[in-house]
Amino acid sequence: MKIVAMTVLLCGALMVNAQETEKNTISAIYKNALTSYDAYSNLKELCTNAKGRLVGSPASEHAIQILKTQISKLNPDTSYLQNYTTPSWRCKSKSQAIVYYGSKKESLNVVNLGLSVSTPNEGIKGEILEVHSLNELDSLGSKQVKDKIVFFNRPMDNAKINTFEAYSGAVDQRAKGAGKASQYGAAGVIVRSMSTELYDFPHTGVSRYKDGVKKIPNLSISTNDAEKLSRISKLNKKATVWLKSNTETIDSVQTANLIAEIKGSQHPEKVILIGAHMDSWFNSPGAHDDGAGCEQMIDVFRIFKQLNIKPVNTIRLVLFMDEEMYQSGSKVYADFVVREKREHIISIESDAGGLLPLGFGIDAGDSVINSIKKQTEQLFDYGIYKTGRGYGGVDIEPLKEFGIPIIGLMTNSQRYFEYHHSANDTVENVSRREMQLGTAAIASLVYLIDKNGIK
Amino acid sequence: MKIVAMTVLLCGALMVNAQETEKNTISAIYKNALTSYDAYSNLKELCTNAKGRLVGSPASEHAIQILKTQISKLNPDTSYLQNYTTPSWRCKSKSQAIVYYGSKKESLNVVNLGLSVSTPNEGIKGEILEVHSLNELDSLGSKQVKDKIVFFNRPMDNAKINTFEAYSGAVDQRAKGAGKASQYGAAGVIVRSMSTELYDFPHTGVSRYKDGVKKIPNLSISTNDAEKLSRISKLNKKATVWLKSNTETIDSVQTANLIAEIKGSQHPEKVILIGAHMDSWFNSPGAHDDGAGCEQMIDVFRIFKQLNIKPVNTIRLVLFMDEEMYQSGSKVYADFVVREKREHIISIESDAGGLLPLGFGIDAGDSVINSIKKQTEQLFDYGIYKTGRGYGGVDIEPLKEFGIPIIGLMTNSQRYFEYHHSANDTVENVSRREMQLGTAAIASLVYLIDKNGIK
Repeated sequence: MKIVAMTVLLCGALMVNAQETEKNTISAIYKNALTSYDAYSNLKELCTNAKGRLVGSPASEHAIQILKTQISKLNPDTSYLQNYTTPSWRCKSKSQAIVYYGSKKESLNVVNLGLSVSTPNEGIKGEILEVHSLNELDSLGSKQVKDKIVFFNRPMDNAKINTFEAYSGAVDQRAKGAGKASQYGAAGVIVRSMSTELYDFPHTGVSRYKDGVKKIPNLSISTNDAEKLSRISKLNKKATVWLKSNTETIDSVQTANLIAEIKGSQHPEKVILIGAHMDSWFNSPGAHDDGAGCEQMIDVFRIFKQLNIKPVNTIRLVLFMDEEMYQSGSKVYADFVVREKREHIISIESDAGGLLPLGFGIDAGDSVINSIKKQTEQLFDYGIYKTGRGYGGVDIEPLKEFGIPIIGLMTNSQRYFEYHHSANDTVENVSRREMQLGTAAIASLVYLIDKNGIK
Repeated sequence: MKIVAMTVLLCGALMVNAQETEKNTISAIYKNALTSYDAYSNLKELCTNAKGRLVGSPASEHAIQILKTQISKLNPDTSYLQNYTTPSWRCKSKSQAIVYYGSKKESLNVVNLGLSVSTPNEGIKGEILEVHSLNELDSLGSKQVKDKIVFFNRPMDNAKINTFEAYSGAVDQRAKGAGKASQYGAAGVIVRSMSTELYDFPHTGVSRYKDGVKKIPNLSISTNDAEKLSRISKLNKKATVWLKSNTETIDSVQTANLIAEIKGSQHPEKVILIGAHMDSWFNSPGAHDDGAGCEQMIDVFRIFKQLNIKPVNTIRLVLFMDEEMYQSGSKVYADFVVREKREHIISIESDAGGLLPLGFGIDAGDSVINSIKKQTEQLFDYGIYKTGRGYGGVDIEPLKEFGIPIIGLMTNSQRYFEYHHSANDTVENVSRREMQLGTAAIASLVYLIDKNGIK
């Protein structure tokens, strides 16, 4: 009886002790992250010296070198490039658009959409047909669409609280509009930028063509100029627009993912993956998307090293290439997982901007979600209160089919579409402390799962 | 028995109905706020045309007119100026500082602290004495302080999660440093800016002198240049600094609070106060502090009008003057409450920036706090999750002694000290959606309390 009682007391004491250690470690992680300027200064280096780092571009090559050097300074146990080749695409010069009405003309703020074909050298010109959905185009049919410049002008729905939902509700125009318009004989396409705000930055993003239809030029227009173009074309039935763009597809470029590890002290063969993507659109410094994610993950390594946290399992940092166009880096890594056959305990991505973190979105079975929810309850005082079922991330998505739980850092989405895929995605628009709260949240989650597992 | 059962059923149905109405109204408020660009465009007007609107300045007069016109457009039941006179202070020209060391000199980014006296025309020059607290100055005493330029260089503690706490922990240097330094014969004072970040914007703010000691010039230096000055003076024991500033106190200026009301349909004599302050520091557009607060409160009126919400009690908008220096507008309003003798149900202030709202800080008795916590639970899906005991606001603080519950909008504090009291507090650094989530949270709280009371 006495022994039982003592055992109970001892276990109790050990549990209290373990909880204290966790609490103190998490507190130390947050303090370290918030008082450090390293990740922010790294981000400045990346976004100043390697802006517009679309896969295969000189900037993307430079980005890989910058990030590799930043990682090397932290002395990881291993660090290497996962080289591969992929097709690519590039924008050879700034695209242009001019609207002509009556005797007047006005320039419009436009940018090429990703994967768009060029216009002929002299550009293309056509009457404007404003529509608000793909269905509307179907109902109009070839007779009304033929030779027109189709102008998709349905705004993101600002009434939604989560702007990613508003994005999902509007992005079909950008992704599928040109394919559909071409089917009915349109000459070209202009799409209202995916932004919650009225301003002058055009936003790019990937657009795809349908098989078997002619590829037609496809531009994005700033929200202010979308309003203007709409006004002009309503008042002037015969208004026309001239577009010029100059792009090319590239058969094959040499590129790489960047991988580094802190080796596990007890289970070096097991992997906790933390990832983000290195590439950004040609027109953007890519600070929130996804420079911040890269620098947060690198900073997790710095924090583990500085606080002398020795993980049980291997922490593997994977900086993916080419999230924006073909997700080639993601596919290459997934193939590698198949060949390598190392157990991945979880996979965490940060690709929702260096913005105030609110929780983790988890794409996994209920028991994993419950375990992580429970463990992250102690991050409530640090603003992490929304953890639950949610979205992991584009780069780690393929790992789902191997049964690996995928987790995405969930941030305050309010500002995201002021920046996303535009020249406005600058370091100045990243708040160091917000970014570092994200770093600390990820480091804490890694620490907890490494220690306690996810059962 | 049957009647009882039916009554229970009926009451139940009415309650469900009432809950549905509340839910729908709150949803309509959020939709309206998030899809409107009015408040943001008003903010642009205010901060472009009336930046640096310190009490008594031409910009402050202009601000009152701009805000009055914005309010008039909404056709409130009443709108008037509460005129009064107050002493004031102004900065007559940009202040300057140069550090001299060896044969070199470098300019420093400085700004006058509020209420600081001028230097003589030729400036003042002295050796640099870096200290990190008021106590340190006490321990050094007159012998080491006399004729020196005292340089307070203790940073805000970035390890704190809430930046307002970090601010409280450092601001004694700015508020009391000159008074203390003068006591020991210092020639002048430089204070490290109250900012969480390392950059080039100096931040101003109020500083006070001790009675009976000589008033000495008192400047704020950007955090980057604080680091530089510290480095230089450590390496060069005989480094000196030259300061020049040109300010004046003004015996009396004519100014005003701005008041407007939507009259209560059942209890017009009872007041729900919503407030913010119109003035900003001379060096700042004052977008977050507190242009955003003013425009949020005006927008509450717009939303009530557009959604045809007819309040039971009178909603009174009070835009206070002179929060930054003397709180004269706040005092004038408090005196008015004494004379007017109208019951104030609650008083709500927005003065924590147009940033992501997280909850309401309530300074009142437990039962009021519990009632408001309970009622705002339904705002959880809109990100309001932190309501509880907290800080009301500087302008409404005097109303506490009349037993009026005071409530402050609680925001994400992470970015606040990148902007506060500096030239960096621009409209471009306000996110329209974040500001409008604040507007909607306040409008929802007003709607709920007007309907349900606070018992």
